[in-house]
Amino acid sequence: MELKRPYLLFLGDVPDALAAKTAIGIVDWRKDWCVGQMRLPGCNADTGLPDMDLQQATAANAKTLIIGVVNSGGFLPDHWIEPIVAALDAGLDVASGLHLRLEDIPEIAEAAKRNNRQLHNVRQSDQKFKTGQGTKRTGMRLLTVGTDCSVGKKYTALALEKGMKDAGLDAHFRATGQTGVFISGRGVSIDAVVADFISGAAEWISPATEPDVWQIVEGQGSLFHPSFAGVSLGLLHGSQPDAFVVCHETTRTHMRAVKHPIPTIQQVIDLTIDCGKLTNPDIRCVGVAVNTQALDDDTAMRTMAEIAETYGLPTVDPIRTGVASIVDRLRQEFGL
Amino acid sequence: MELKRPYLLFLGDVPDALAAKTAIGIVDWRKDWCVGQMRLPGCNADTGLPDMDLQQATAANAKTLIIGVVNSGGFLPDHWIEPIVAALDAGLDVASGLHLRLEDIPEIAEAAKRNNRQLHNVRQSDQKFKTGQGTKRTGMRLLTVGTDCSVGKKYTALALEKGMKDAGLDAHFRATGQTGVFISGRGVSIDAVVADFISGAAEWISPATEPDVWQIVEGQGSLFHPSFAGVSLGLLHGSQPDAFVVCHETTRTHMRAVKHPIPTIQQVIDLTIDCGKLTNPDIRCVGVAVNTQALDDDTAMRTMAEIAETYGLPTVDPIRTGVASIVDRLRQEFGL
Repeated sequence: MELKRPYLLFLGDVPDALAAKTAIGIVDWRKDWCVGQMRLPGCNADTGLPDMDLQQATAANAKTLIIGVVNSGGFLPDHWIEPIVAALDAGLDVASGLHLRLEDIPEIAEAAKRNNRQLHNVRQSDQKFKTGQGTKRTGMRLLTVGTDCSVGKKYTALALEKGMKDAGLDAHFRATGQTGVFISGRGVSIDAVVADFISGAAEWISPATEPDVWQIVEGQGSLFHPSFAGVSLGLLHGSQPDAFVVCHETTRTHMRAVKHPIPTIQQVIDLTIDCGKLTNPDIRCVGVAVNTQALDDDTAMRTMAEIAETYGLPTVDPIRTGVASIVDRLRQEFGL
Repeated sequence: MELKRPYLLFLGDVPDALAAKTAIGIVDWRKDWCVGQMRLPGCNADTGLPDMDLQQATAANAKTLIIGVVNSGGFLPDHWIEPIVAALDAGLDVASGLHLRLEDIPEIAEAAKRNNRQLHNVRQSDQKFKTGQGTKRTGMRLLTVGTDCSVGKKYTALALEKGMKDAGLDAHFRATGQTGVFISGRGVSIDAVVADFISGAAEWISPATEPDVWQIVEGQGSLFHPSFAGVSLGLLHGSQPDAFVVCHETTRTHMRAVKHPIPTIQQVIDLTIDCGKLTNPDIRCVGVAVNTQALDDDTAMRTMAEIAETYGLPTVDPIRTGVASIVDRLRQEFGL
């Protein structure tokens, strides 16, 4: 899946910023890929980009309308169909992060056909993959893993890509979830792949490269999450990381949407190495990224210092501190 | 997916018994569910069941035509379409273990519609599952796990179901692969499920039961197989086994279809317990099932004795020795 750029971000009439967090994430990381936002009356989200109608967007050379919002229930409201059809008629492709397939809405399917435009459903995967081979590929890979779902694995991967690039390294973010696909313009929602092909899809996402290229692979789920650990393991085996960073959120009392306790950082390190060495015997942990959003400055800094001390690993909050100490560790460990 | 019985087994004109191994497996375990076989000229496979045409099969009350063969390439040869359409016209459902969807062949789709018959594609999964919850369910579960793919996990599970029933226990085989689905008349090919729902599908396969019911869940892949470990882990978490049996084949030099070494039985026991305790803290290994087909009698018996001694576990070859010693161990461990 390759999305044409630049993007026009469709926000519909969602009630709040949370419902537009995908669009906001795109602007956070790829503002220069976006020409503007398109909102309907009543929209309470704002990415900060200029509001545009289709005429303005096509004049600004927009190539893909991104539906970067979620509607409660995941369906497409009827009154969003007309502006989407209009975008296709104006010559844009349309990419959606909703659960449904755009093709399943007849008006949209017809408009795409009529205009010879592409529809992308980034939460779906119709792509055929091979089963994973587990054979070591050239190039270097870093995977973000988690003590739970939704602890900042994507954000950390993107921050590492930026930090490594700033340090002169050849680093490339590799998306494994829908927001990440919009941000990278390529990739696959790995949890939507047929189970037999998880590690094969991960191999496709992070292919062989020149030896000094680093692919920073967005992690999914957690090896300790009873709903999604299979996805996490296939992604680990397929991406065969040389290095991994553990992402953690300090205030969780149990794992997201289930009753299970949060594992310790040490448990995550141990099991990631235990399983990861199957496809990369040299796998190692190079840092911890803590989401300290819920903590005040003092508590956040003390928490990170304690983790750094306990594990002997650079410990950051990508938002509060940046990721420079992890990039430094990578350079030491791998002689970069 | 629930298949109506009895079955008529369609063998087409496959060149050898290997291509009909699914049909032969059905006869091995559920001969009384089958009225006969239907072969085309040139067929070199034989399940030993009486040959029947559709008139004889319907007179014998056959309800589902089972396509229990694989064609090289996995597609459906054109000359199989006519007899399949005829079966639908004769009032049978059709269930296929091929990779394609029967609905994708227009003549078959039309015949099913015309006769209001069901088409089942046991390698596909259109069924919607919830994500796994990991909450402990009532009833007892045993999972077969492997040092590799294709080492006898299905056969061992079926032998254990039979052995436990013979011992007066309330045991039920639970299928997770296409042959198993035909043999149990229900289930899902878990490797065909969307990755997000692996453990949820495993929870559906082995639901809550009365406390003294044992569900014997067919394992898939291996936690040490770089292509399929994600499936194995989701199945482990979802089936939350109280007991597991390690299946092993002694002559493999590397894992199936990849270059990786075979793990030791101890590695499989350790990682299965390490990961399995997430959803069942009391998980334990109750035996080893060795496929000794490639060994002579003396070597086979010596090999099993060595494994039993090394691990302190009952060690069987389900075909050569039966599984009574593992059933005995289960009765001791769980006071049955």
